Amino acid sequence: MGPGPSDVDPRITGALARPTIGHLDPAFIQLMDEIKQLLQFAFQTSNELTLPISAPGSAGMEACFVNLLEAGDKAIICQNGVFGGRMKENVTRAGCEAIMVEDEWGSAVDTAKVAQAIAAHPDAKLLAFVHAETSTGVQSDAYALCQMASAAGMLSIVDTVTGLAGIEVDVDGWGADAVYSGTQKCLSCVPGLSPVTFSQAAVDVIQSRQTPVQSWFLDMNLVMGYWGGGAKRAYHHTAPINALYALHESLTILQEEGLEASWARHARNHEALKAGLETMGLQLVVEAASRLPQLNLVSIPDGVDDAALRTTLLQDYNLEIGAGLGALAGKVWRIGLMGYASNPGNVRLCLAALENTLIGQGLSLAGGKAVAAANAVYASAS
Amino acid sequence: MGPGPSDVDPRITGALARPTIGHLDPAFIQLMDEIKQLLQFAFQTSNELTLPISAPGSAGMEACFVNLLEAGDKAIICQNGVFGGRMKENVTRAGCEAIMVEDEWGSAVDTAKVAQAIAAHPDAKLLAFVHAETSTGVQSDAYALCQMASAAGMLSIVDTVTGLAGIEVDVDGWGADAVYSGTQKCLSCVPGLSPVTFSQAAVDVIQSRQTPVQSWFLDMNLVMGYWGGGAKRAYHHTAPINALYALHESLTILQEEGLEASWARHARNHEALKAGLETMGLQLVVEAASRLPQLNLVSIPDGVDDAALRTTLLQDYNLEIGAGLGALAGKVWRIGLMGYASNPGNVRLCLAALENTLIGQGLSLAGGKAVAAANAVYASAS
Repeated sequence: MGPGPSDVDPRITGALARPTIGHLDPAFIQLMDEIKQLLQFAFQTSNELTLPISAPGSAGMEACFVNLLEAGDKAIICQNGVFGGRMKENVTRAGCEAIMVEDEWGSAVDTAKVAQAIAAHPDAKLLAFVHAETSTGVQSDAYALCQMASAAGMLSIVDTVTGLAGIEVDVDGWGADAVYSGTQKCLSCVPGLSPVTFSQAAVDVIQSRQTPVQSWFLDMNLVMGYWGGGAKRAYHHTAPINALYALHESLTILQEEGLEASWARHARNHEALKAGLETMGLQLVVEAASRLPQLNLVSIPDGVDDAALRTTLLQDYNLEIGAGLGALAGKVWRIGLMGYASNPGNVRLCLAALENTLIGQGLSLAGGKAVAAANAVYASAS
Repeated sequence: MGPGPSDVDPRITGALARPTIGHLDPAFIQLMDEIKQLLQFAFQTSNELTLPISAPGSAGMEACFVNLLEAGDKAIICQNGVFGGRMKENVTRAGCEAIMVEDEWGSAVDTAKVAQAIAAHPDAKLLAFVHAETSTGVQSDAYALCQMASAAGMLSIVDTVTGLAGIEVDVDGWGADAVYSGTQKCLSCVPGLSPVTFSQAAVDVIQSRQTPVQSWFLDMNLVMGYWGGGAKRAYHHTAPINALYALHESLTILQEEGLEASWARHARNHEALKAGLETMGLQLVVEAASRLPQLNLVSIPDGVDDAALRTTLLQDYNLEIGAGLGALAGKVWRIGLMGYASNPGNVRLCLAALENTLIGQGLSLAGGKAVAAANAVYASAS
């Protein structure tokens, strides 16, 4: 129950362990086509260029930036946590200028500041932001931000590594141009792949570049020759066959449940966790309007030994919760309720383990009330 | 029995399917330390910076080039197959100049030509070559080439994606500076990871760069903070946890067998396959001194329908063999005997399937003699 990787459904590890076949085998190529269609479903897009990058989310981020930017371009980057800073690194390493729009860690991206930056830099090629910040548990308004970018004639890049399948992701509805995610969060698949999708406008930019993409491995002109080539697929790199079996299974599970049902499940378990935490007197850090249900930022009460508590949870309860990052280190916990791990059993385990351990550290709590509060949420929802 | 991915040992798929834990979990960090040590064993190196890149071999190649080169540098690249051409792409996309030393596809790198190139370009920063060419089944003299580079004050980059565990790889003995491999060949692990190792001289170059590495994801200054950080590991990206379980198991299997025993097994199965092929009148393309035992390039006899034969092998025998690439397309087959798939059962299946299918295409062959010839090799070896 950390910020990811989340628990993997045994159906998915079962798929993962199937016999490895060749990356040009006709049966595998059919699987690739199905993965593309399932990703289009998950992202809610008809974008033809929709596929999993054969590397973790950081490489998906890099694929978006190095394909859309050429040296000398300008990009507006929204930073309200760790991953906006990583976007800046991608921009500067591509020989481009990053215009930063900064917000407090724990707050959503301020659209008014973004509007100022767009007005001040109408020559920027793109606007990039994090839809679901894994470092802070905050969601920003992807629809508004993508619409602002396209109204200004800019492309948009959206990080929804933690968002996909946990909250609404609507790539076509937003009008987003390049969106990347990860497999190890609300898809509950193994880490190591990064689903991406590019709009036709983004593809046009990629295909009309003046200079080659600086990364051969991430050059979408080459990657699309393998993933999009129909019968005439060109070898680019050896795909991670077994991880793709797992992704196929995870997306099939998502399709069986349905997108809305998955979002509702994440919301319900968040409500139950929140009720239990508040019964213990613990506070959620992020304001209600921008909370991610799948990643809960909790203030650590005064006098609590953060590291000792997390060690106790891991050793005595086999339960991982996440530490704070950056300025939030030692001040918050990050409790994930992602994908397969977003379930009432985990909510109860986490509340009971936290309550017992806090009592063990000397806090005066009435044992058992937290789980009862969570159960009341489930009872009212059913 | 293609050019990879090879068959994966069920012990390895079993490891792959273990429950996913966090990438900063103490138990996982111990596993990372063990993987480093096992890779040092496999590469025969004491290099501290030895780890698996979280992406396929193409990304391992790119990691070597973008970390060691800075814009404006010059690199001597040996090309005798597909992968030398990919190296050139990496050099030019890093804003550097590639001095090409070209040999025929199917021949080893000519050290005399390399000596000329080094003499003509003493200002080159590095020499790069493919130790084991997956596209042609050729091995080149890694020791001689690395020694020539270091004598000239240049770094060396060695591609041994198909070499590792199939033939001798001796990173410290060669004096190589940057070496990358893949997991899906003679390690018989799932595709998706690229083991790399860097000498101290290479690390010094990386740590004293004037400009940042163009790829954030592949920046070894950051990657080594996660893999080499001891107790103070810094989060860089989410490691592909399950794939690393599999790599650990695959390297453990290699250690149990022993390096020399693994090389001898690959050589023995190659000899048996060769005896059977020659009994059928089929010819190996590569001259004996530079043949890779794990990847056998076979001339397609006149009048044989290449595509139809490979389709029959796949559909009727569940057996994949590789097609020729580039100039060799339609002229050769590539028969892999890699890792777990390098065994007498596969040799016999392949010979019998080829013989039957060639007879079915009208060739006049004495059925059954090929397998007998292979068996004679095994009998004499035991």
